[in-house]
Amino acid sequence: MSVLYVSLGACSLAAHSLVYELDLPIRVEPVPLRTPESPINRINPLRRVPALQLDDGTLITENSAILPYLADLRPEAGLFAPVGNVERALIQSWIGYLASEVHVGGFRPFNRPERYSADESAHPGIRAKASEQLHQALAHVEHHLNDRQWLVGERYTIADAYLGVFAGWLPRLGEAFADLPNLARAREAFQARPATQQALAAESLR
Amino acid sequence: MSVLYVSLGACSLAAHSLVYELDLPIRVEPVPLRTPESPINRINPLRRVPALQLDDGTLITENSAILPYLADLRPEAGLFAPVGNVERALIQSWIGYLASEVHVGGFRPFNRPERYSADESAHPGIRAKASEQLHQALAHVEHHLNDRQWLVGERYTIADAYLGVFAGWLPRLGEAFADLPNLARAREAFQARPATQQALAAESLR
Repeated sequence: MSVLYVSLGACSLAAHSLVYELDLPIRVEPVPLRTPESPINRINPLRRVPALQLDDGTLITENSAILPYLADLRPEAGLFAPVGNVERALIQSWIGYLASEVHVGGFRPFNRPERYSADESAHPGIRAKASEQLHQALAHVEHHLNDRQWLVGERYTIADAYLGVFAGWLPRLGEAFADLPNLARAREAFQARPATQQALAAESLR
Repeated sequence: MSVLYVSLGACSLAAHSLVYELDLPIRVEPVPLRTPESPINRINPLRRVPALQLDDGTLITENSAILPYLADLRPEAGLFAPVGNVERALIQSWIGYLASEVHVGGFRPFNRPERYSADESAHPGIRAKASEQLHQALAHVEHHLNDRQWLVGERYTIADAYLGVFAGWLPRLGEAFADLPNLARAREAFQARPATQQALAAESLR
């Protein structure tokens, strides 16, 4: 049986929710991150989640690969789109944007300025600029959602699941991110889904 | 006719090369970046390339969406893999890794420290750390290529085209990146392809 490695509070929540959305025969294994004894260190040389290990040992990493892979196992659920349908490219585009611009481009320097300078006195300046860059990256998504409920088409897709994770990280950032009502709506829609609730409950047990 | 917007020296070279690899009926439009008068500013609110505008006006952005979209137009060329084949997920995973960890996580703070701190005196420290992070991100790819010629399977794929672009940026970074022979090999393989030569020639004309 395939195993999906996830961690409480991490961006693996989107893939985790898909296991229940799609009723997939995948075992979910919550693991700690950044501790020497975590099993993820043996599984994934990058030591992070999500990581999907298939029956034959093949390891798939990156949300931009895992989310489409899982959705393609159950095309009838409509969380993605078939090859040849332009919605497939648009969904993949939003996932790519969220992974690179929002997560790595925005949240990473905000949460981990030590990865951007060894000089601690530079960290407050890095966090201030990161807050600005993150807000700008999110404003693009906020604007896109002004006249539509979902990122692509007329239904919830894997792009909305992924957005739901990042939108869920905003309340802890405080007032500077309180002016994004469409992202608040995306967060609520994601968190209200039974599959998301089930994933959150499973992660919290560990 | 669809239009692919590219820029000389940018990461759009991978998508541009695919137009010739796959003999696609797409018009390629080289544009300048970061100038107020560039046509890309009207086409793409993010003001960057690659951007693929379809006949009906739909805009597709992000390499992680454009490269798969183009490859799926000519599945018989074998530059990607069909849905249901695990190679498809692995190719998408490498593209995602290169987009987020190598490009945004590594090259961006190295080339544009002003996006990471408004304090100019912090920029040398940001570049030094970025060089370290970029090298670490690339070492993961270098290691993967120790015992194989291509990123996935036994053939050149869209992941190798994308890697070829970033490997092509390394010589200008100097000695610190000269210890990556597999990436040098990936660069040479990419740059030797007639389609890449044709793309480079077309971009240089402008």
